[in-house]
Order: sequence, then structure tokens, then C-alpha cells
Amino acid sequence: MGGDHGPSVVVPGVARAAQALPGVRFLLHGDEAKLGAELAKAPAAKAVSEIRHTDKCIAMEEKPAQAMRRGKGSSLWNAVESLRAGEAHACVSAGNTGALMAISKLILRMGAGLERPAIVANWPNMKGVTTVLDVGANVESDAAQLVEFAIMGAAYHHAVHGSKRPTVGLLNVGSEDQKGHEEVREAHAILRETKLDFDYQGFVEGNDIALGTVDVVVTDGFTGNVALKTAEGLARFFSNEIKTTLTSSPLAMLGALIASSALGKMKQRLDPGRVNGAPLLGLNGIVVKSHGGADANGFFSAIRVATDLARSDFSAEIERNLQRLTAPSDKAEGDPVSAVSDGVPE
Amino acid sequence: MGGDHGPSVVVPGVARAAQALPGVRFLLHGDEAKLGAELAKAPAAKAVSEIRHTDKCIAMEEKPAQAMRRGKGSSLWNAVESLRAGEAHACVSAGNTGALMAISKLILRMGAGLERPAIVANWPNMKGVTTVLDVGANVESDAAQLVEFAIMGAAYHHAVHGSKRPTVGLLNVGSEDQKGHEEVREAHAILRETKLDFDYQGFVEGNDIALGTVDVVVTDGFTGNVALKTAEGLARFFSNEIKTTLTSSPLAMLGALIASSALGKMKQRLDPGRVNGAPLLGLNGIVVKSHGGADANGFFSAIRVATDLARSDFSAEIERNLQRLTAPSDKAEGDPVSAVSDGVPE
Repeated sequence: MGGDHGPSVVVPGVARAAQALPGVRFLLHGDEAKLGAELAKAPAAKAVSEIRHTDKCIAMEEKPAQAMRRGKGSSLWNAVESLRAGEAHACVSAGNTGALMAISKLILRMGAGLERPAIVANWPNMKGVTTVLDVGANVESDAAQLVEFAIMGAAYHHAVHGSKRPTVGLLNVGSEDQKGHEEVREAHAILRETKLDFDYQGFVEGNDIALGTVDVVVTDGFTGNVALKTAEGLARFFSNEIKTTLTSSPLAMLGALIASSALGKMKQRLDPGRVNGAPLLGLNGIVVKSHGGADANGFFSAIRVATDLARSDFSAEIERNLQRLTAPSDKAEGDPVSAVSDGVPE
Repeated sequence: MGGDHGPSVVVPGVARAAQALPGVRFLLHGDEAKLGAELAKAPAAKAVSEIRHTDKCIAMEEKPAQAMRRGKGSSLWNAVESLRAGEAHACVSAGNTGALMAISKLILRMGAGLERPAIVANWPNMKGVTTVLDVGANVESDAAQLVEFAIMGAAYHHAVHGSKRPTVGLLNVGSEDQKGHEEVREAHAILRETKLDFDYQGFVEGNDIALGTVDVVVTDGFTGNVALKTAEGLARFFSNEIKTTLTSSPLAMLGALIASSALGKMKQRLDPGRVNGAPLLGLNGIVVKSHGGADANGFFSAIRVATDLARSDFSAEIERNLQRLTAPSDKAEGDPVSAVSDGVPE
């Protein structure tokens, strides 16, 4: 029921998934009448779906704390609950992010050995997709949590983007060991010294996200959220500039018309919907957030992310790597990165 | 002598300034032979310049601590020293940023009542220019320092971009009072309660930078640096995508040719050189960093920033506002924003 469009986007998204992802079935939680009307128009979706009726809904602007107190029996709550009950293998929602996170933490709890959840963003880059986490589940993260994010992010990239041995970088303001604040320097020391199922490549900087220098960029939720939203603002600015430019004169419009096929392909390549689907990692269950404004294609992309995760050995991979982290805080103590940073990034 | 190009960019930049900024004169610190050769080709620059010879130079990759120890007598050192000695009103350098910051702090010291310097970035936005600070002088900032950045940033925007009463926002992961970590919530409380020479508009998010929601965006140096570099990476990605797209087929190339005048204007509008010149604010003197890769036009832009600051009552404005902050820590104590953030940004 969530997102800007509700069932009118969710059901066509399911229809696309029914064709592209054989064997996947759906429990659709929400208003029976509205869901039924959409399913009637989409026989492919109807064939693989079952409606679980509720007329209760969590509003997009509701506060997480309020949603936790009053959300029981809502479509969002029931979807997460069906996961806990073992009826579903993964949950996809275009609803209220804060409520989804709070209710998922409440019902599913954290995975074994994990302290904090993280929200993942997937950015198109020059080579493929960069996975960035955390982009907003937390406002602060200590070294141990950053290391967890690295482990979860690598397992995610492996499961969803198919990289055999993902490369991972820690976001910082420079590449030398003594750069940045204590948390990143300590996490750097732990990741450098532990043998894990991915290639830790050290510190990366903001520009490395779009360059695709590494598969997974690890950061705290404050920095990640600012970086993500800065990029979203800039993308909108550029796309406005291009539109303004190519309609600024009859000659420019003619040029745009002639180059329209190439420009259309570019638009498709840069389409954020192409990589829609932000998993909330670290929970005892697979929960994927679809962007509230996503279209059917974008919602389908989120379903695919959930399916790929559910069909992978993602959780086992996280557990295996967590076990390799023996007493990370002892390790960090003996580490040489205690020099005070000069604080200047260039 | 600094930057990727040295005197071959600095002197033509001075020549442009000689014509556009009547009354400005220059002390050029560096190698007499190289500077003299460039000046011989640029009579407009020669007429307003005086060479101060030194054959010592700070390398672009030198560490700040090393530059401080061994930099005495170098062109960068002498330029800052001429400011302290009262021979110059402002200093512009395309050299090593870390060295420039360290040596400036050492020679000039902090301005009265100010704790920490900040590096400013100027971003083209949908309406004009957004001033963002700090983008890398510090890795962590407490509430009092964020408030100082707001005061310095507003005075800067007033002096250089001519806004009579700048609007200022504090970068956060949401707009509600209880969002973000303690430092931003405390700074928010101080800025909201103090009457200052600018309009504090509360929290802003990453996308507001490119939207131009406020004139000045205040953040800690870690977050600001990541946001700036993320944007730089994305800008490069987009410009590559456009280039690839418009050369992808004969038809696309024809379209680009026909629209070339409009595309050229767009390139000019988005040119980072147009807003080049990052002042190091908070020092006892005006120091402006030009991007190492800037061309003559970009270097001229940095000279203009320095000139505008030197000709404004920028320092007096900062002092006036600092005096209005009476015991900021007492104020924050009585503040109601103590609710624990739920940590989820949407």
C-alpha cells in the first residue's frame, strides 16, 4: 500500500517479476478491493499472488515511534510479521522508511552477532554499480559497526551484483593511514589485519563512489546520507540543465531531436530506477525498501534484489566473516595508527 | 609557483585581474627567471606586479608538518609572511592546500574569538552559488565551531556574492529538531536563539546544496569534504556520459554539432573555474586557495574572491556576530532538543 502510487505500481511490478523470476510467489498485504482491482488487470501477477487483507495503513509521514506503537495489523506490519512467521522469505515495501526500519527491528530483531542495521544504496557508476552503506539507519557508527557494515555490504554485493570477491573501501577524507577521525582509523586497522571473504582496499574518497573504484563503500549513516542526497540533488540539477539547454533555441531543439536515440539511452543508463531496491541489512530476515517514487520497473528491481538475497547464502557468508573477527577491540589497541591527523585533506 | 601549471597560469590570471580589478597590485613570490619570462609576455600584468625572488618551493605532495618545518623562505611561506608583515592585503595560492593551511595558521594565527579555520567551497546551483564550509580543514567540529562556521560563511557570502542578508542552513539528515547527532542539534539551538546578521533557516539536507535552498551550508570538515568530492566525482561521471552519448553514433554527433552553441553555454555555466577560489576562513588575514588544476580564468576568479574580501568589512562583520553569542554553551544547556533521534532519515 506504500509509496507515492500504492498498488498501481506494486502490482505491475509483481507482474514483471512473475515473468522474469520463475518460482517466486507473493503475499500482498493491504486493501483487498484495491489490490484485487489491480490484479484483475494483471493476470500474470494474479497467478502468483495471494492477498492478505487489512484496511490499516501506516502513513508516509508517520513518525517511526508512533508507527511502532500504533502500527500493529497494518499492511507494513503484517508483511514483516509474515517474514518472522516463516510464511515469506523476503519482504519488499515502498512505504515509510523510518517505520519499516523500526517495525522490522522490533519484529525481526538483529541477526546473530550484529549490532546495528544499515540501509544500502546502489549507485550507477562508470563501470557498474557501487554499493554504499550505511545511508541513514544510524547517525553515528563506531569502528566495530563500520566493520560489520563492510562484511554485510560485501556479502550483499556478492549475492545481488554477482561479484565473486567484492572490493571494499572505507570512506574518508584522504588515503593515508593517519587521515580521518578515530572511528575510521580504527575500523581501517581491523579490516586491514583480518582475513575476510573480500578485498579490503583501504580508504576511498567521495569521488570514488561515481568512479567505481571499489564495489562497496562503507561509511557512517550521517555521512552516507549526506553524500547520497548531495548526489541526488546534483543529478537533478544536471538533468534540469540538460533539459534547459536542449530546449533553449530552435537549433538546440533540432540537435536534441536528431540525437534523441542516444540521449534516450543515456537517460536509461542513468535511471535510478534501474538500481532501485535498498535492503535494510543486519536484521533477522530480508527486508528491501523500494523508493517511494519508483515506477513499476523500479519496484520490480527491488523485488529482484529481495529474490537474489533470499536465494543466496548471504547470511551464512556474514556469519562466516563475523567469526573471523576475533576480539576486534584488542586488535585495534596494538595498532600503529595513533598519529594525530593534520586534518587537511589535500 | 604552485598548482599544476605554476607561473604560466598565475601570470595570465594576474593580467586578467589587472584589467578587471582596477587598483589591485601584486607581489609575485617565486623564481625570478620564470616569473619574469611570463611577465614579459603579459604587459598588463607586468605593470601592476613586483617579483619577490626565492628559489625555494613547497612540493604539491609534501606533508603539512614537513612543510611547516622546512618551508621557511619558500614562495608559499613568503606570500603568507608578506600578509603578516602588512605588505599585502590578501594572499592567493594554487599550491599545496595542507601546507598553505598549516603555514597560514602558524604565521597568521586565528582571528580574535575564533577557534578553528574552515575551508570554503563554492558550488554552482540552480539559482547562483552555494557556499559550503567546512570542506576539509577539520575532521570533527563541535557545536561552537559549527556556529563559528555559520558566522564566517555568512560574512563571506555577503562580501563575495553580495547577498545583503544571507540565508544559512545546517547540514543534517532530516529537517526535524531531533534529527542528527548532538553537535548539529546543539549548534541548531544556538543559531535559532541568537539574533545574527543573517537568516538561519534550520536544518538542510544534501540535495539542498545543488537546489540552492540557502546561500550558506554549514557542516563539519569530514562530511563537507565527502560531499564535495562525491559531487566532483558525479560531475565527472555525467560529463563523461554526455561526451560518450554525443559521440556514440554519426546521428548523435550531428545532433551535438547542431546544438553545439547551447551545449557550449551549458559547459560554461557548469564550469567549476567560474567559481574557483576557496578562502581559508578564520585566520588573521585573507588567504585564498586556487584549485591546483585551475586555468588562468580560474586563477583570476580566486584573485577576485581575495579582492572582494579585502575590500569588504568581512572581519568586522564576523566580530560583531561573535559578540552576539554570549556564552553559547549555557544557552544550549537549557535547550529542549534532547530527544533521542530515531536515526532514520525518511
